[in-house]
Amino acid sequence: MDITDRAQRIIAGERRALAQAITLVESNRADHRVQATALLAALVHEKQALRIGLSGTPGVGKSTFIESFGLMLTAQGLRVAVLAVDPSSSRSGGSILGDKTRMDLLSRDPRAFIRPSPSQTHLGGVARRTREAVALCEAAGFDVVLIETVGVGQSETVVAQMSDLFLLLLAPAGGDELQGVKRGIMEMADVIVVNKADGDLKATAMRTQADYAGALRLMRKRPQDPEGYPRAMNVSALEQRGLSEVWETLQTLSDWRRENGFWELTRAMQARYWFEQAVKMALLAQLETPAARSALSALGDAVAAGTQEPAAAAATFVRELRDHA
Amino acid sequence: MDITDRAQRIIAGERRALAQAITLVESNRADHRVQATALLAALVHEKQALRIGLSGTPGVGKSTFIESFGLMLTAQGLRVAVLAVDPSSSRSGGSILGDKTRMDLLSRDPRAFIRPSPSQTHLGGVARRTREAVALCEAAGFDVVLIETVGVGQSETVVAQMSDLFLLLLAPAGGDELQGVKRGIMEMADVIVVNKADGDLKATAMRTQADYAGALRLMRKRPQDPEGYPRAMNVSALEQRGLSEVWETLQTLSDWRRENGFWELTRAMQARYWFEQAVKMALLAQLETPAARSALSALGDAVAAGTQEPAAAAATFVRELRDHA
Repeated sequence: MDITDRAQRIIAGERRALAQAITLVESNRADHRVQATALLAALVHEKQALRIGLSGTPGVGKSTFIESFGLMLTAQGLRVAVLAVDPSSSRSGGSILGDKTRMDLLSRDPRAFIRPSPSQTHLGGVARRTREAVALCEAAGFDVVLIETVGVGQSETVVAQMSDLFLLLLAPAGGDELQGVKRGIMEMADVIVVNKADGDLKATAMRTQADYAGALRLMRKRPQDPEGYPRAMNVSALEQRGLSEVWETLQTLSDWRRENGFWELTRAMQARYWFEQAVKMALLAQLETPAARSALSALGDAVAAGTQEPAAAAATFVRELRDHA
Repeated sequence: MDITDRAQRIIAGERRALAQAITLVESNRADHRVQATALLAALVHEKQALRIGLSGTPGVGKSTFIESFGLMLTAQGLRVAVLAVDPSSSRSGGSILGDKTRMDLLSRDPRAFIRPSPSQTHLGGVARRTREAVALCEAAGFDVVLIETVGVGQSETVVAQMSDLFLLLLAPAGGDELQGVKRGIMEMADVIVVNKADGDLKATAMRTQADYAGALRLMRKRPQDPEGYPRAMNVSALEQRGLSEVWETLQTLSDWRRENGFWELTRAMQARYWFEQAVKMALLAQLETPAARSALSALGDAVAAGTQEPAAAAATFVRELRDHA
């Protein structure tokens, strides 16, 4: 299909065109990559959404939160896309968001669009595809793009690199579990939301919120934050309480950052980061051609047999790759 | 200096030649890389040492263990080299093994050779340099090469990829802390050694050992292990107790693996892995030339300004890099 036509249909908000375009950017085929690159270039800076990264370990009620939060936004007339970076997808073939029934109401909402994490062998591949899917959702006119990930380390960094705001979802817990959240992840958070502030856990949730509020106050002030941020809040996704306060908090922060130049600065830094990542991946993609694979395998045999040293064999390989380019 | 001459002096056991060669493999300069590659090729499979990877979080008594264990080996007439992979060196400029006074007696032992972790901006660089330093120490005729790392995740994987055996050092701890060791790291261990089985901590150390022995029994048997492995043991590095048992256990395991073909198989797989890593690093090194840096920076500016899309700009860059090769 013609790239201009595809782009027009995405901008017009055709869900099918968006879904197909995401499938295109997820493909590894060389001709698909060329088309995907052209399509993304045709849509560059068409529109901007508020991109919200969202992380939380299994069991914190992430799906319930996204469903309740998403439905609150769509009820206000906003269009919401939900994407995911699943660091475990290399093994499971895509476990988070794979099952849309997890967000039953939101997935049937005409103002919402939910897309599971692309399955991929490494986090870098998932990250690139998701970043491009975010760009497609923006071009399609979504107001908010939620990018979900599971709290296991590296994937948060990747999600933060494609988000305007980063929300860390936590469960109520005893004070000594505060240290369970890695410092690096806490430093990434713009808003910490303690979920399950309902029923028996309500008091614990309040205490957990206070603990994190205290911990945040001890951290060095970041230039991209107004007074009082990062914030710790509590919600009940189940009872739909506190969600509009979270939304207001996120909007206040994002407005402040726009007015003070941090919004554009962050987006510019992120674009540069993804460009450099794309360059690295393109260089490494030279190893995926049949000729390169067979040369790698033959030299690898010699190295494994001990007749060649790894560094020398690598130098030979790279020289040959350059000569045959 | 002539490569053959350098190689001869290393094989002859000249410490100064070894230290200089390690400095050479640590260098990033292009001409040094060419020399280092030639030197490593000249020394390929000259001799083999027993390579023991050793990991433990700060506070488990790693230095004391290495000192006591190393002195026990040198007392038996064995020559011992100690190297390190420090994942934190990008920030601290090399924190572990940086201070030889940590292993005062061992560092003055003529049969021992201690080399701090190379400081480097990323783990991949440290890993390659350490792997090459291991090869140099082998060629220099060391019987045992200990490769130390701090237990923080990725660096263990890197050390395991250059070790014949992997030893995980732990401190005595309550039973509920057993889960503190990541499953992936436990699965890497050939021997778990609980240190500080002395004084007030002795009973706790025994209990911790029993807990880990139980946990190891629950794990799936690995093909590279004889009956009864991986093992959990306890030692007092301070009082020099249990160290010869650890050494016997490691030797029994390594003999079994040699006899059953796993030793050669592992080394072959590791050599192939380092070859592939070296190829990837060589491809990415193309980005480090002044011309490439300036092109990256100019395109990066366009991407940051929003006039180009990351994927399209990356495709342009890689095309130009190829045309000017």
